[in-house]
Amino acid sequence: MKQPLFVIKIGGNVIDDEAKLALFLQDFARIQHPCILVHGGGKIATRIGDQMGIASNYVDGRRITDDDTIDIVTMVYGGLVNKKIVAQLQALGCNAIGLTGADANMMPATKRPVKTIDYGWVGDVTPQQIAATTLQGLLQLGLQPVFAPLTHDSAGHILNTNADTIASSLAIALSEYYTVRLLYCFEKKGVLENVDDDNSVIASITQHNYQQLKDEGKLFAGILPKIDNAFAAIHAGVHEVLIGHADDLLQNTTEKTSGTLIK
Amino acid sequence: MKQPLFVIKIGGNVIDDEAKLALFLQDFARIQHPCILVHGGGKIATRIGDQMGIASNYVDGRRITDDDTIDIVTMVYGGLVNKKIVAQLQALGCNAIGLTGADANMMPATKRPVKTIDYGWVGDVTPQQIAATTLQGLLQLGLQPVFAPLTHDSAGHILNTNADTIASSLAIALSEYYTVRLLYCFEKKGVLENVDDDNSVIASITQHNYQQLKDEGKLFAGILPKIDNAFAAIHAGVHEVLIGHADDLLQNTTEKTSGTLIK
Repeated sequence: MKQPLFVIKIGGNVIDDEAKLALFLQDFARIQHPCILVHGGGKIATRIGDQMGIASNYVDGRRITDDDTIDIVTMVYGGLVNKKIVAQLQALGCNAIGLTGADANMMPATKRPVKTIDYGWVGDVTPQQIAATTLQGLLQLGLQPVFAPLTHDSAGHILNTNADTIASSLAIALSEYYTVRLLYCFEKKGVLENVDDDNSVIASITQHNYQQLKDEGKLFAGILPKIDNAFAAIHAGVHEVLIGHADDLLQNTTEKTSGTLIK
Repeated sequence: MKQPLFVIKIGGNVIDDEAKLALFLQDFARIQHPCILVHGGGKIATRIGDQMGIASNYVDGRRITDDDTIDIVTMVYGGLVNKKIVAQLQALGCNAIGLTGADANMMPATKRPVKTIDYGWVGDVTPQQIAATTLQGLLQLGLQPVFAPLTHDSAGHILNTNADTIASSLAIALSEYYTVRLLYCFEKKGVLENVDDDNSVIASITQHNYQQLKDEGKLFAGILPKIDNAFAAIHAGVHEVLIGHADDLLQNTTEKTSGTLIK
């Protein structure tokens, strides 16, 4: 029987709210198993960019990571946000270590090729690129890795990378050694059958009812990539994926009592 | 016979000059022994603070690390500078891992008590506070730690900390396990007997000639804390301390051919 491991992803809604973040970290620090935290960026990078007089650059509604922007997200995600989380976890007795994908060569990634849009310093990572052995070494030292959504191109540049993909790649890469539970924390209590009703949480999604829910047009478009990501993780060896609210998901990590289970 | 280990400190003059930094990192990546790099901050934090409209705060000529300033140095030293160095070292085949003193609880420090001046979020660290066992664990994984000049107060706050002190504390804490050479890289070729003559490098300073040099008024005031720090390191078990120019010190790490040796 493999040892359990949690990979937990939190997004901007938790990062941007100091009180919410403090509560989340208290719950996180209480988990009695090896854990990996992946955090998104939140709005603070935009705010600091504005304060520096550096405007965000969009093409066709997609944010472009130009030279100024990669410096800002490196500072904000890799420095400010990551180190504040680590310092707060340390205060809670959790031996956190903050990392980007450049540190210990954890996540060498591929700069997104230019097709119609040049996204700039953006990288895509796959489970095969994760330095799983080194990561396992850190876990064996009793450390709880905290990842900023940054990777690197192995040519000296930091790359901006989607935190959901980082979380699923880490979960898949570590399934060989651990029974991995992947928790996607977001602002809703789970995947909703009716987007206007916060209590219409779908308890579980299987490959079978997923197709049905899609056919009936019950799932809002924004959630589909998260569910696809979850199924990809399950097919690649991850034990289970839970999508829901951080407050609920972390209250009881031994059995599923809330959120949407993908299995 | 203990294994050799280098603790190398670089200051703002290297950090602030991209070309100098690239050359330094090439030399660093070539060293065939376990190495720890400690970097200072440089002027970039002041520049970014200015750009954000946040003025540096001084009392009696001493910089104060207020709430805004600790956020800026956490972003800049812990994020921008540290991760750029790590990404560049990775590109050179050196398996660097960027750390602050909060990460893996490497350097819990003591917030400087308020006497006549309140320095704000500034911490002092001692060799006894270093998590030497965890650090050794990282070295045994084949990683080369790269430290930003930041520690933490174990109550959730990052602290601004002198990089020279961090370097000597790390060197002392690891002397139990390694034969440690501590290299202080700065803008001069070594400690100068005549501050106006760059070629007047003093080849070695012992406790004996140090007193004599001080009595003769030959050492400029700014270098005295560095030398005192060096002697403290030697007395606490560090094998040797070299002070000089990065270009020279890293060219030949097997025998002393340049700089000032403190032994």
